[in-house]
Amino acid sequence: MLPQSVSLEPNTLNSEALRPEPARPFLTWQRILDWANEHYRCRTFSKDEKIPARPGLLYLVQRGAVRMVGVAQVSATHRNQGARAIANMNQEEAFLGFIGAGQPFEIVAQSPFTLHSYAHIDQTSVIWMYWHDLDNWPHFRREVLDAFRYQHQRKLLWLSTLGQRRTIDRLLGFLTLLIEEYGEPAEQGYSLPWTLTHAQIGSAIGSTRVTVTRLMGKLRQRGLILTQDDNLICLPADTALRR
Amino acid sequence: MLPQSVSLEPNTLNSEALRPEPARPFLTWQRILDWANEHYRCRTFSKDEKIPARPGLLYLVQRGAVRMVGVAQVSATHRNQGARAIANMNQEEAFLGFIGAGQPFEIVAQSPFTLHSYAHIDQTSVIWMYWHDLDNWPHFRREVLDAFRYQHQRKLLWLSTLGQRRTIDRLLGFLTLLIEEYGEPAEQGYSLPWTLTHAQIGSAIGSTRVTVTRLMGKLRQRGLILTQDDNLICLPADTALRR
Repeated sequence: MLPQSVSLEPNTLNSEALRPEPARPFLTWQRILDWANEHYRCRTFSKDEKIPARPGLLYLVQRGAVRMVGVAQVSATHRNQGARAIANMNQEEAFLGFIGAGQPFEIVAQSPFTLHSYAHIDQTSVIWMYWHDLDNWPHFRREVLDAFRYQHQRKLLWLSTLGQRRTIDRLLGFLTLLIEEYGEPAEQGYSLPWTLTHAQIGSAIGSTRVTVTRLMGKLRQRGLILTQDDNLICLPADTALRR
Repeated sequence: MLPQSVSLEPNTLNSEALRPEPARPFLTWQRILDWANEHYRCRTFSKDEKIPARPGLLYLVQRGAVRMVGVAQVSATHRNQGARAIANMNQEEAFLGFIGAGQPFEIVAQSPFTLHSYAHIDQTSVIWMYWHDLDNWPHFRREVLDAFRYQHQRKLLWLSTLGQRRTIDRLLGFLTLLIEEYGEPAEQGYSLPWTLTHAQIGSAIGSTRVTVTRLMGKLRQRGLILTQDDNLICLPADTALRR
C-alpha cells in the first residue's frame, strides 16, 4: 500500500479499522485458520483456476490474490430474435477487481449478471464459511462487514473513473486506483504486485485489448506510467506523491 | 422492487436481511428518528440541492432519494504541462447511483476522486450521526453494515455491465440494474420512480448525452425499454420477467 500521503486521508476513516489486515488481532485470525483447517474449509488454487464459490457463503483470502469477474447476460439484441440469438452471443467477462490476502469476498448470483472468482496467482488459499459460523466470532463478523464497507467505498471511486468519457482517462484512473490500493514500493515508484493482461484491463474499462495496448503506450510516453522489466505496471513516485 | 422472480435469488441471501427497509423493526427506526430530531441531526433538502456530507460521518436517507456523484480529478494530460492545465480541465461528474429511503450512505474523500451527494427529489430528508453514536444500537449498526454489504454487491453488478464494450449494452445493463433495484410496477412493466437526464445516464456509463439520446431511441424501437408520459424510464414486464 502507498504511504499515508497518497492513501486514504486519515479523516476519511473512523476509528474502526476499514483496512482489516493490519488491524486484525493475530489471535483471531490464527483461531479462524485453525478452525478452517479442522473443518476442511480451506483450499489452495493455482493461477487462473476457478474458485467454485457459491452464493450465500463467505470466503476469506488466506494467501495470494483472487480475481473477481462479472459476466453480463444482458445484450441489446432485438428481443424478438429469441433465445438462440442470445445463446450464441459472446459473453463478455469484466474484471471487477482483486481480493487480497486477509480480505473477504462473496458471490452474488443475479440473473442478468453472474460473478465468478479465480485465483489470480499460484498458491492462492481460500477459506470459506457460512455466515452463521461467524456467530462464534462477533468481533470478527464486524471486521468482515467493515471490510465490505471499505470495498464498497473503493468501488464507488472505481465507478467515478468509469464514468469518464475518454478511454485514456478511464484507463489512468483505473490503474491509479488499483496501484493506490495494492501497489508496492518499486525502484521508480509504486508497482502493482501482479500482472494484468491488456485484455483484462480492457474488460474492466469497457474497451478492447488493442485499444488498451495503444493507450498504455501513450501513457508511458507521457511519463504517467512505467512498465517494469517483469511486466508489472508502475506509477512513478512523483505522480503518486503529487496528489 | 421487482417480484422475487426477477430480483435477487433467495439463495443468494443468507438469513440476515440484506435489504434493510422491509426487515427493519419499526421500533428501532422510530427511536432513531426521535433521537435525530432531538439532537437536530435531521435536515430536509429540495431537488438537486447539495447535501453537505462530510467524510467520517454516517448518513441515513429518511425520505426521498439521494443521488451520489463522483468527480474525477485524474486526467491523462501530459504530466509536464503542470498544475495550470489540470486546474483548467473540465471536471467530469459521474452518476454513481441512488440511495433510497431507509438506506445509509457515506462520503469518501479520496484525493484523485471526490464524492458528493445531492437530493434527487424534493422533500428529501437526511439524518446524520457519528459511527460511535451507533454504540447505542448495536443491532442497528449491523443492519447498516449489512446495507453497505448489499450496496457493494449491487456495485459489482454495475461494474459488470460497465465492462461491456458496446455502449448500448452498457446502457441497457445499467437501466436494467437500476429498475431492478428501484423499479415500481407501472402500466406496462416496471418503471424507475425518478427521472434521470440523458446527461446523467451518460456520466454513469462513460458516454455523452447525445449518444445516450440516440441509443435510448434504438432501445425503444427494439421494444427493450419504454418511456412513460411523465418521462420515466420503464422496462417492459415480459422482458423483466423473462429473466
